Amino acid sequence: MSPTAAAAEPDDTPQLARLAVQLLTASRHTVAVAESLTGGLVSGALTSVAGASVVLRGGVVAYATDLKETLLGVPADLLARQGPVDPDVAAGMAAGVRRMLGATYGVATTGVAGPGPADGKPAGTVFIAVSGPAGGAGQGLRLQGDRQRIREETVRHALSLLVNALREDPG
Amino acid sequence: MSPTAAAAEPDDTPQLARLAVQLLTASRHTVAVAESLTGGLVSGALTSVAGASVVLRGGVVAYATDLKETLLGVPADLLARQGPVDPDVAAGMAAGVRRMLGATYGVATTGVAGPGPADGKPAGTVFIAVSGPAGGAGQGLRLQGDRQRIREETVRHALSLLVNALREDPG
Repeated sequence: MSPTAAAAEPDDTPQLARLAVQLLTASRHTVAVAESLTGGLVSGALTSVAGASVVLRGGVVAYATDLKETLLGVPADLLARQGPVDPDVAAGMAAGVRRMLGATYGVATTGVAGPGPADGKPAGTVFIAVSGPAGGAGQGLRLQGDRQRIREETVRHALSLLVNALREDPG
Repeated sequence: MSPTAAAAEPDDTPQLARLAVQLLTASRHTVAVAESLTGGLVSGALTSVAGASVVLRGGVVAYATDLKETLLGVPADLLARQGPVDPDVAAGMAAGVRRMLGATYGVATTGVAGPGPADGKPAGTVFIAVSGPAGGAGQGLRLQGDRQRIREETVRHALSLLVNALREDPG
């Protein structure tokens, strides 16, 4: 789950959000979202789909680092050792919000939107994770562009990771 | 706080978000967001501003009605009596997220994005609220347009309500 270059793709965020809601609705599953750098935009994309209320429980924007511990249950020693921009923190956020909101799936984002580095990592360093009944999946990204572009690309990749998890685990 | 017609205004959401972050930064205050129909877009607008991490604690997307009670502390009897689309529910969400996330200010949205009615209210029925050290303020809106338009307008009005509260209470 080390950072890898993200392939350039068209902006298919609305389609991915619709697909995620369709797959969740068909399987009668629910999702909850934990966001740091995206600040609510993953939830925002999912709730842009009419009918999302059937499958989206809700989300937590844990923008301040301490909230990743107090709200989402990410271990304090992990945050102290690795900082908030870390694959295990993303996995902990996804598992935490899934548990906290009583959802079948949890999806999480953490990273540096920029401008400039933060938490010892360069802008564009992003980790996303999904937690579900069959376990978890994660991805490290090294995104290019300005703050807005990095956030938008993170939303797209997070929804893609969720869709892949839903396709692999349709039960 | 009964619904009133919202005046048509240009899309000044990015400017309002920047202004809110500037006012909060200058006064060394913080904000937390509780969202229902906007699904994370108010937090998303605030975090689009570079430097938002100094003032935004985070947020809760309480999309499912039960989360308004269990996460944000909105009284269950209020939700049972009035439903989730209600001025007192908005006020309770703002106060709850402020307390839960340890922020100076809380801002909240609840309403019907459509298409079609929900929770006994027509699409476009929206309530927003701000809670702060000097008390609270709320607004009822009757918005026109499709789901996307209603959500975007709600974000703009919520940021405007926050900016007004910050200007009236700069201490």
